[in-house]
Amino acid sequence: MTSNEKRIDAKSLKQFMNQIFTHMGLPPQDAEKGADLLVWCNLRGVDSHGVQRIASFIRLLDDGNLNPNPNIQILKETPAVLFIDADRGLGAVTATYGMEWAMEKARNVGIGWTLITNTMTPLAVGYYTEMAARAGMVGIAATFSRPNMLPYGARAPGLHNGPISIAVPAQVHRPAILDMATSVAAFGKIEVAKDRGVPIPEGWALDKDSNPTTDPHQARMALPFGGYKGSDLAFVFECLTGILAGDPLVGPVLLNRQRDRRYRQNSLMAAVDIATFTDVARFEGHVDDLIDGVKGLPKAEGIDEIFIPGEPEDRVYDERSQRGIPLPEGTVRKLRQAAERFDLELPEGL
Amino acid sequence: MTSNEKRIDAKSLKQFMNQIFTHMGLPPQDAEKGADLLVWCNLRGVDSHGVQRIASFIRLLDDGNLNPNPNIQILKETPAVLFIDADRGLGAVTATYGMEWAMEKARNVGIGWTLITNTMTPLAVGYYTEMAARAGMVGIAATFSRPNMLPYGARAPGLHNGPISIAVPAQVHRPAILDMATSVAAFGKIEVAKDRGVPIPEGWALDKDSNPTTDPHQARMALPFGGYKGSDLAFVFECLTGILAGDPLVGPVLLNRQRDRRYRQNSLMAAVDIATFTDVARFEGHVDDLIDGVKGLPKAEGIDEIFIPGEPEDRVYDERSQRGIPLPEGTVRKLRQAAERFDLELPEGL
Repeated sequence: MTSNEKRIDAKSLKQFMNQIFTHMGLPPQDAEKGADLLVWCNLRGVDSHGVQRIASFIRLLDDGNLNPNPNIQILKETPAVLFIDADRGLGAVTATYGMEWAMEKARNVGIGWTLITNTMTPLAVGYYTEMAARAGMVGIAATFSRPNMLPYGARAPGLHNGPISIAVPAQVHRPAILDMATSVAAFGKIEVAKDRGVPIPEGWALDKDSNPTTDPHQARMALPFGGYKGSDLAFVFECLTGILAGDPLVGPVLLNRQRDRRYRQNSLMAAVDIATFTDVARFEGHVDDLIDGVKGLPKAEGIDEIFIPGEPEDRVYDERSQRGIPLPEGTVRKLRQAAERFDLELPEGL
Repeated sequence: MTSNEKRIDAKSLKQFMNQIFTHMGLPPQDAEKGADLLVWCNLRGVDSHGVQRIASFIRLLDDGNLNPNPNIQILKETPAVLFIDADRGLGAVTATYGMEWAMEKARNVGIGWTLITNTMTPLAVGYYTEMAARAGMVGIAATFSRPNMLPYGARAPGLHNGPISIAVPAQVHRPAILDMATSVAAFGKIEVAKDRGVPIPEGWALDKDSNPTTDPHQARMALPFGGYKGSDLAFVFECLTGILAGDPLVGPVLLNRQRDRRYRQNSLMAAVDIATFTDVARFEGHVDDLIDGVKGLPKAEGIDEIFIPGEPEDRVYDERSQRGIPLPEGTVRKLRQAAERFDLELPEGL
């Protein structure tokens, strides 16, 4: 925590975000979902997807992109599959419903697969897969949008660096949550570097002229992780989200055939019901064994601890639940602007 | 092609493999599936999963691990999900059925999800996802087994480097097929380097003492791709395959609690029916656009062409379909041993 950061407790921060969302015109239960997601991200140290995003949500509302009262419509439904038009609703709302409905289907037929079109960003997709894991299922989620990442071998954006998440429950341990951008680092992390006034590591991004940069203000294009593998993952997931929804968000941009330029994403929220295949407690015990086995391995030089997926974020969660969430100056400024906009009081300490 | 390699046409090679599988006791239609898979791999340049594997299949047969006449049993079935015990059958056989059955379910309810336990390796999982793509679906496949890869931060194996594949159909272009190990390179590639008598690149593997090696004969543990991301993918896919099937193949090994030491894998074969969501021709046209858009991007320095998933393998396929499949000396030796074993004639030119 740098000296210009302030700590605030999760409850106050959540209450404040709830107020903002309510003033943005969201119904109470939806405002609650939005606040819960943003603060969950901060608690887990995923500040890139935390409360600093409120500034962009207000901008999306002003631009007419974010619909505070979406009329979510079912475009197609089978016992296993659901395809919904989110009517430009807040991602926290549309993706939460999407995962809940997927879980309902999974309970009946073993798997539920919700495709969501026309939604704002669900942000940290691990939030939704954790919901599934806590209900004794394996959660799978992804969300993709417009090009902002270089395909491997290119020097201009040609894919979105959307995230993919898979979460599984354990019994003694907390759920293991894989949640990763298909780029080396999520763009939100670049926003956080701006807020903190620090440079970004080499290898994260290129500037507008396709030159490597460590200045977060100059970063325009993300680099794929693992070379062609991260790039290929982003390619097939654009097919499984935007193209499957009939709303491709990459190809038309690259071919200059884009008609509707309004911001949106297409998301996948899926759940696999463990009880359909095996005993849930047995599954969870085996995940505990896997966690214990992996963490007990001899460590590579310079490594203090081997982490399982999501564990570093669990550590931050515990620390921040106790000591509060540190907010850098840039983020506090965004919250202050939001408070002024809606004539709200800032939470104590900010 | 090095000077000690021989070229053989795909048809003769397939016929020969078919004969071997038949002599191994497989029914004709299963021998055909096995031969088709191995030669498909060689045609696409994935020699790591090609005909050189016949030696290990014969070994598995002799050890009583491979069952040439499996009695595949349904353990659980819903309209969307199938869970089968493959009875130690050849992966080419059990995974082909698994994907066919997943496609049948997908046609009815939009998605089909087959979990296969107790199978021999399906080898190149892209073979099965391509089946789905050619039928107007998105194919998803993965297969995982015992630890042979370092989790990120460890210096001993603690995860399997199993592959994940997703394939999507296009219209003008061929299907895009992502098919990647969760390690930097598949172990089969190390086998091929042995056969060719060439070193492996740095960063692929460690030797038995956990030191980096470029000698394929010393390679014991694979390194995960993309750092912790490849490692975390392998972690959650062990949960989605072995642990979901009630047959964990990693945790018990790491905790020295392994009881049944016989070789086997657990696989996932899934299909998403495009027509359930959107018009198939429209989907395929959008994939064509994405391919054209990505390939038309300005190229990074030193890059001659931007490839979409599976495209490098398509190129090799075309060349080898025309000019024959090059087999290095080590592979020819394996085929000769198999021919001797079953008193078969080697195909002409070998």
